[in-house]
Amino acid sequence: MASLVVLYKTPIDAAAFDKYYAETHIGLAKKLPGLRKYEVSHGPVLSLAGPSGLHLVATLHFDDLAAMQAALATPEGEAAAADVANFATGGVDMLMYESQEV
Amino acid sequence: MASLVVLYKTPIDAAAFDKYYAETHIGLAKKLPGLRKYEVSHGPVLSLAGPSGLHLVATLHFDDLAAMQAALATPEGEAAAADVANFATGGVDMLMYESQEV
Repeated sequence: MASLVVLYKTPIDAAAFDKYYAETHIGLAKKLPGLRKYEVSHGPVLSLAGPSGLHLVATLHFDDLAAMQAALATPEGEAAAADVANFATGGVDMLMYESQEV
Repeated sequence: MASLVVLYKTPIDAAAFDKYYAETHIGLAKKLPGLRKYEVSHGPVLSLAGPSGLHLVATLHFDDLAAMQAALATPEGEAAAADVANFATGGVDMLMYESQEV
C-alpha cells in the first residue's frame, strides 16, 4: 500500500478550517480515483515535546505510489489539490511513501 | 484508532539503520502492549517538493491515545524508546493523534 500523509499546520481560524474541511474538502478528496482508504485525525495532534504545531493529519491510501501519482494527475486530483489553498491558512506538508505491515 | 507516526530523518549510514531497524527495533516495538497494527515504509519517502529528508516512516496503531500512552509507559515502551538512540542518527520526530475513516 502507499500512503499520502497530509500534515496541516495550525490555521488562522481552526473552526473555519474544520467546517470547510468537513463540508467541502473531504468530498473532493474522496473523488480521487483509486483511493482505498481515507483517515482524518480528530482532536489534538501531539508530539513528544507537547503541541506539534499541526491541526489535522489526513492519510489517503492507494495501492502503490504509481496509483497515487496517477490519481493526483487526474482532474479530480488537481481539483482536490487546488482546494487546499481555500482553507489551509497555516500551510501544509505532504509525505508519500509505500509501506507494509510488519 | 490512534496512530503513533515515527518520522526518521536521513541517518548517517542508511544501510546500518535498515539492518538494525529490521533485526532489532521491530522486535522491541512489537512487544508494546495494545499494539494493533505496525506499518513500516519501504523505498523513498517523498514530499511534494521532492526528497523529504526522511528515511523511514513507521506507524503504530492503538485503540486510542490512552492505550498508546499507557503502552509507552510500560517497560516494553521504555525499552523501545530507549533503543531509538541506537540507530536514529539523523534524529526522529513523533506524532500522536486519534483518527477515523471518512
